[in-house]
Amino acid sequence: MTAKTWGGRFANTTDARVEAFTESISVDRRLYRQDIRASQAHARMLADVGLLTSEEAAQIVAALDAIADEIERGTFVFSPQLEDIHTHIERALIDRLGDVARKLHTGRSRNDQVVTDLKLWVREAIDELDGQLHALQAALLTSAERHRDLVLPAYTHWQRAQPVLAAHYFLAYVEKYQRDRDRLADCRRRVNVLPLGAAALAGTSLPIDRERVRIQLGFDSLAANSLDVSGDRDFALEFVFALSVIALHLAGWAEEWIIWATTEFGFLDLPEAFCTGSSIMPHKKNPDVLELIRGKAARVAADLQRLLMLLKGLPLTYNRDLQEDKEAVFDAFDTVAASVQLATALIPQTRFRREAIASRLEEGFLDATTLMEFLVARGIPMRSAHEAVGKLVRLSEQRRCRLAELPAEVYESIRPGLGSEVYHVLGVDNALRAFRSVGSTAPAEVDKQLAGWRDRLRLSAAAP
Amino acid sequence: MTAKTWGGRFANTTDARVEAFTESISVDRRLYRQDIRASQAHARMLADVGLLTSEEAAQIVAALDAIADEIERGTFVFSPQLEDIHTHIERALIDRLGDVARKLHTGRSRNDQVVTDLKLWVREAIDELDGQLHALQAALLTSAERHRDLVLPAYTHWQRAQPVLAAHYFLAYVEKYQRDRDRLADCRRRVNVLPLGAAALAGTSLPIDRERVRIQLGFDSLAANSLDVSGDRDFALEFVFALSVIALHLAGWAEEWIIWATTEFGFLDLPEAFCTGSSIMPHKKNPDVLELIRGKAARVAADLQRLLMLLKGLPLTYNRDLQEDKEAVFDAFDTVAASVQLATALIPQTRFRREAIASRLEEGFLDATTLMEFLVARGIPMRSAHEAVGKLVRLSEQRRCRLAELPAEVYESIRPGLGSEVYHVLGVDNALRAFRSVGSTAPAEVDKQLAGWRDRLRLSAAAP
Amino acid sequence: MTAKTWGGRFANTTDARVEAFTESISVDRRLYRQDIRASQAHARMLADVGLLTSEEAAQIVAALDAIADEIERGTFVFSPQLEDIHTHIERALIDRLGDVARKLHTGRSRNDQVVTDLKLWVREAIDELDGQLHALQAALLTSAERHRDLVLPAYTHWQRAQPVLAAHYFLAYVEKYQRDRDRLADCRRRVNVLPLGAAALAGTSLPIDRERVRIQLGFDSLAANSLDVSGDRDFALEFVFALSVIALHLAGWAEEWIIWATTEFGFLDLPEAFCTGSSIMPHKKNPDVLELIRGKAARVAADLQRLLMLLKGLPLTYNRDLQEDKEAVFDAFDTVAASVQLATALIPQTRFRREAIASRLEEGFLDATTLMEFLVARGIPMRSAHEAVGKLVRLSEQRRCRLAELPAEVYESIRPGLGSEVYHVLGVDNALRAFRSVGSTAPAEVDKQLAGWRDRLRLSAAAP
Amino acid sequence: MTAKTWGGRFANTTDARVEAFTESISVDRRLYRQDIRASQAHARMLADVGLLTSEEAAQIVAALDAIADEIERGTFVFSPQLEDIHTHIERALIDRLGDVARKLHTGRSRNDQVVTDLKLWVREAIDELDGQLHALQAALLTSAERHRDLVLPAYTHWQRAQPVLAAHYFLAYVEKYQRDRDRLADCRRRVNVLPLGAAALAGTSLPIDRERVRIQLGFDSLAANSLDVSGDRDFALEFVFALSVIALHLAGWAEEWIIWATTEFGFLDLPEAFCTGSSIMPHKKNPDVLELIRGKAARVAADLQRLLMLLKGLPLTYNRDLQEDKEAVFDAFDTVAASVQLATALIPQTRFRREAIASRLEEGFLDATTLMEFLVARGIPMRSAHEAVGKLVRLSEQRRCRLAELPAEVYESIRPGLGSEVYHVLGVDNALRAFRSVGSTAPAEVDKQLAGWRDRLRLSAAAP
Repeated sequence: MTAKTWGGRFANTTDARVEAFTESISVDRRLYRQDIRASQAHARMLADVGLLTSEEAAQIVAALDAIADEIERGTFVFSPQLEDIHTHIERALIDRLGDVARKLHTGRSRNDQVVTDLKLWVREAIDELDGQLHALQAALLTSAERHRDLVLPAYTHWQRAQPVLAAHYFLAYVEKYQRDRDRLADCRRRVNVLPLGAAALAGTSLPIDRERVRIQLGFDSLAANSLDVSGDRDFALEFVFALSVIALHLAGWAEEWIIWATTEFGFLDLPEAFCTGSSIMPHKKNPDVLELIRGKAARVAADLQRLLMLLKGLPLTYNRDLQEDKEAVFDAFDTVAASVQLATALIPQTRFRREAIASRLEEGFLDATTLMEFLVARGIPMRSAHEAVGKLVRLSEQRRCRLAELPAEVYESIRPGLGSEVYHVLGVDNALRAFRSVGSTAPAEVDKQLAGWRDRLRLSAAAP
Repeated sequence: MTAKTWGGRFANTTDARVEAFTESISVDRRLYRQDIRASQAHARMLADVGLLTSEEAAQIVAALDAIADEIERGTFVFSPQLEDIHTHIERALIDRLGDVARKLHTGRSRNDQVVTDLKLWVREAIDELDGQLHALQAALLTSAERHRDLVLPAYTHWQRAQPVLAAHYFLAYVEKYQRDRDRLADCRRRVNVLPLGAAALAGTSLPIDRERVRIQLGFDSLAANSLDVSGDRDFALEFVFALSVIALHLAGWAEEWIIWATTEFGFLDLPEAFCTGSSIMPHKKNPDVLELIRGKAARVAADLQRLLMLLKGLPLTYNRDLQEDKEAVFDAFDTVAASVQLATALIPQTRFRREAIASRLEEGFLDATTLMEFLVARGIPMRSAHEAVGKLVRLSEQRRCRLAELPAEVYESIRPGLGSEVYHVLGVDNALRAFRSVGSTAPAEVDKQLAGWRDRLRLSAAAP
Repeated sequence: MTAKTWGGRFANTTDARVEAFTESISVDRRLYRQDIRASQAHARMLADVGLLTSEEAAQIVAALDAIADEIERGTFVFSPQLEDIHTHIERALIDRLGDVARKLHTGRSRNDQVVTDLKLWVREAIDELDGQLHALQAALLTSAERHRDLVLPAYTHWQRAQPVLAAHYFLAYVEKYQRDRDRLADCRRRVNVLPLGAAALAGTSLPIDRERVRIQLGFDSLAANSLDVSGDRDFALEFVFALSVIALHLAGWAEEWIIWATTEFGFLDLPEAFCTGSSIMPHKKNPDVLELIRGKAARVAADLQRLLMLLKGLPLTYNRDLQEDKEAVFDAFDTVAASVQLATALIPQTRFRREAIASRLEEGFLDATTLMEFLVARGIPMRSAHEAVGKLVRLSEQRRCRLAELPAEVYESIRPGLGSEVYHVLGVDNALRAFRSVGSTAPAEVDKQLAGWRDRLRLSAAAP
Repeated sequence: MTAKTWGGRFANTTDARVEAFTESISVDRRLYRQDIRASQAHARMLADVGLLTSEEAAQIVAALDAIADEIERGTFVFSPQLEDIHTHIERALIDRLGDVARKLHTGRSRNDQVVTDLKLWVREAIDELDGQLHALQAALLTSAERHRDLVLPAYTHWQRAQPVLAAHYFLAYVEKYQRDRDRLADCRRRVNVLPLGAAALAGTSLPIDRERVRIQLGFDSLAANSLDVSGDRDFALEFVFALSVIALHLAGWAEEWIIWATTEFGFLDLPEAFCTGSSIMPHKKNPDVLELIRGKAARVAADLQRLLMLLKGLPLTYNRDLQEDKEAVFDAFDTVAASVQLATALIPQTRFRREAIASRLEEGFLDATTLMEFLVARGIPMRSAHEAVGKLVRLSEQRRCRLAELPAEVYESIRPGLGSEVYHVLGVDNALRAFRSVGSTAPAEVDKQLAGWRDRLRLSAAAP
């Protein structure tokens, strides 16, 4: 008998280069726990329906535990000749149990086995990542609370726009990662449908009981169509897509902080432990971790693209092309998980340079929009008010002064009476306090959000 | 006053090449209904909170209706100088109402306006596509019922694997499109959060009432953080991702039918109305529609990739790069919607060549797996049974016969007694009837699924 | 006779939705000049070999000229029923000439016709773009000359690194666009191989003379294998790839200038004609053109990805999927050409804020590396010198001073005697003048490059 | 002194998670030979210009040789703490030579060092791949010669189109891989420009001699602008693009052979050594190698996409994002090289089932186009001939016969006299012999190509 699971039909042995080209054990060994767990559930079910004796099932379950131990201890020997993790484990089982082991594959195929393993793995990965995202949200919330009173210039087009509370800024990302968690939760529901029992593609003539396997493995329901199952990788696509969006959220934030950490912006002191230096320029302190987080978004998006292109034009059921799926899934998860964890660690250690920020806060006309709204509230049509303030800005630029430094007669010339009251909304602090809409950076609105999130994330009360 | 919405600050006029490069009206004019609807809701709210009089609001609402009519009738004049759909509509409003019109933009920005419009559009697109997918499922189900008794060879790796009912085949796609509909429904929940009121990025100092707008526009909730909102395109990504998966499902099916329609397979007669000929080869009848459905999957996946790359490394809030989002969203939707509709039309008109299929059905050892399971059920360990059948297949190939044509003594040599009973499971019909697992191609299982789907899709009973 | 070029074999007419789905005239009408030119060359050749009379050929050539005129004048009627540009032109020819027109398609197929048209188009596009890139290089060179004495901080990781001449900065992009032009020239050689004569896929039994067509159309050689030709889109891939790299070069530069135009950096005054404002924030002047140039890189890269995915898994020769190629090619070219032209226009109008740049030039330790090299030149091992200067930087940060402001005894403590000479290399101006390696920012090196490029780009001498 | 190359400025040590996240040694260790070779050239140059003594340079060169040996023998210890291959080698050098080793980094930076290493690597990879592609062309040519007389049905749209010689088919791929080799050669010219000497980004103040380094390392010229160099990855993009096109060529061919190996087509017997079986279906012989070659095209295209997205929006010079480049380059090369080698091995071992092919060769109207051209040659306008033959095909389909089996009166009815001569061009063999155009499948043309390629590939004469 050959080492392969399918030798009988073949007269010639496999070419060594072919083995190297077609092996997946270097990638899918990572599924060993899932493979063993699914096989144990399958074995118990086979005993339940009489395809194994309970002694046989018990032997198999115990031997699989032993194999799992061996793999975890690092003493298990992997070999490219044995193709994949399924073959490795089956071979080890046969080495231990002989003929009994050969019965384990009854009523299943590698086609449904591998999807089951991968779904189990993705389910765990989702749960793990959900916890990591929660930790990231908690770090962001803590920073939001810590910087409750810090006012930042906010930008559109990287041009100074309006003032916002730093707390508002941090909470924007809490929102984004919440959407990511929601997407993962939706994805998990579609992951959690049991493929095992589809066998090769048509089901089986043996009296298996898929429901018993489902319960043991914690799936919500049974995949209803065997043909659909064996080539279905929708769940992998959806998972990697959700990872891509997280990666984009991280990359956008990383870009912001890279720019904020420049000499010119000077908003941030990044923790040295998250920076590196230059081999030639002794003064450099580079934001490498942030740059890698940004750059690695390309990796995750490419993993998604790879899956999409891989699947394009494949017919139903298993085609060997599908073997290429796992590396993309693992890589996208590893990349995003590491990035999330590093972001979570970096954020609390980053110091905002409050003085530097404050010293230039009045630059860039952050109060112009509030001034315009002030005019609108006094009955000037929005577009006319916009134009009036636009001209004031030009005037200020020419005079190299702020809006608050323009003399009252300038404002009087827009509308009599303005000169006496307009200065209450000019200047960044006044502008900030003027906000009031729901979801705005108004201090009261932000406080409501801070409290709401502390509650929603089930965190204990913030330190005073 | 310039035609632009933001002229006051500017001394020089815009370069004409710049206008051509930066205009989006050629793309976003498609959002006119959404823009008008959102503006009407905004106007009514402004009246409710006293920022407009109710007369002003009524005038604006009525004039917007008139503008919508004009656009629908095709008499509205579009011009690249007016940048985008928002500017076009505002300008038309000013032309009609003068200063009153200028008040409409009070308390909002193009930043939150455009996301609101796009979300309204995507929400409608989801609903429309959901209906189209339902129709496609119905067409598949009808074909499943019509071909309830047709047996097809099923393939893995494009090699003949096991027999399945054509009904089982069609239902596999019903499953896939159901997952697609579920994904769209999940996406819709995240779309249906109102951005309007975020204004430029920080909210507004004017006393707007976002809740009133929300109710009018049918959103489920308010976006909670203004900074998060103005640059958030998660919903567009998620929508285009869902479209990409649908496109993959279509492309895989198209590939199958292209191959099935070859002279060599000869399974299908495609409707002539869905084929085209050749300008040089007079005998050709090409499956062009299927090929385009397959090819267009690349277009949809590229739309997704475009959005991912566009968003990579962008900071929070609006950056002009985002203008590139809409064309990708529209293109992906149009492509998938057209493909879904053509698939729905093509499927019922396609004739399966039952005789041709049947005539070669016994080729390719479709019963080999059932034979193996038969051995397993008689106590031969799975892997040993696998090897035994593998050798029988080799033997049959050498003798150029089928498994059912091997003499009894060959089977006896595997295990005494086999020779007398094994022929009951050999041959494709016997093999097919042997299936029994849940979700398999077993006729009873398939019937259960047929009935279940007819119910689930809320279709009236199938014609007998 | 139907309007289609292939009607004879078909009993039923095409479905209207199918026509809308499969038409390409909305895209490929753009090839009309190329199609006509290639048809004229084909007609002349047919006459040369006796498949047409010379009168027939003359009639066809003249009628094609008339059709071209009509299309250029905008009076030609396009209709989706007529599929593509080839059919439109043939139909118009038949309307004019009757049976003679029907002879034009002798010995060719739409398969080789469309590749020939597209190659002609791409060849022209390459030549056009080469000219545009030359103009961009000229604009960069002029800016380099104009800013010959301006010193900029250069960055790695967006952290201040070393000083460079602005001229050196501009020339870096001249290098990049030269590589792009070289890549386009290489691509052009592979484009310029004549496909016409491959007919459907196997050549033809008619006595055509491909060499005569080649000469008329200016191709370098004949495609040698008919099967290779009809589905070959390598040239399209290569062209769109070259466009993608240009788009990346533009996007990186755009990102730099967006950041340089912030209030915080304050390096640049962008021309107002290339900026836009905000509908709500009256003070904004946004670098929209630069942002769109950056964002549109995603579009071009997606066009490439679309082609790659489209072609994946297609067999030899024409498959209808290929129809999707042209839109990607056109879109990528249009996007890059417009971006190049706008960059060329924007650069000379942008003002560097010399004072603002100079006022902060001593920040960020731009002279640290030169100091280190100064120590190395005095025999201190590189890594030790690196460490010493690293510590001086820390010390300066603590004392909030520059390296040039550290007292002599600090330098003496590193090595006796240093204190008296080190100040000659400290400070940005000293550091800049110290460079000497080939290709460096050393003023003499930069001057050599400026002169070399003026020569290489065949520009007349710079204004003094 | 820390292990890092840049420790002096830093007070705190690097976080362990940061080390794991930022290390590249697991990937770039593969550059050790290139790094050592470039360092040796650099050391010799430093001695030439007096920055090292010749003894120091000799010591360094010898020690680097020893380190190379150690790495090759597998005794070198790698550690994530030492970031990258450059640091590993420098550290090992310091361990051996102490202070002398610290001098090696004089006048260079990791920024120019890493690009130099990668360019050396890519240059070697191009040369290696060129040899592999030559071998693949040779295998294709040999198969072409071996199957000189085999007639295959050729397809467009996977519908039977015209007959071709198998030799013509194989030569089509020889053409494609020649274009690939040409593209690689063009790429190599742009790779072969020396970056070393650009130092960090601005060049150096030390008197290095880049020309001496260039000669030693075999580069064609010096990079002319230091700012351009440090972040330039155009060459990596171009290389991975060239790999992507090769991957597409392989994938298209793989798709063809997968389909040709089906039971239904039955054209091919794939070598068992390149197939695998099924764990559940004992009769299966799956074309796994071909499927993986097809699937892996997605991987290579994703590597390209990853690089494009990575580079989008990066400013000039080195940004840490760039570290992500190497894995994509290595992966794309490894994948394509393995696929090319397996294709080269598989092709000669594949058997064409001549009888099966011949037995169905008259199906599908492969002679219809030749018939039409025959009518054209007799003066019937092309489009009319097309329509006439289209109707004959319909008639044959109705009568379930071939064109050659239609009675003479049918042909007479088209044009009197046809009935007596038309049968000379009907039937596949007649049709094939009728071809005559340059580049066609005409036997004489194919023979010319066979001879030409044998010459061009510098292969000895084919076995008779």
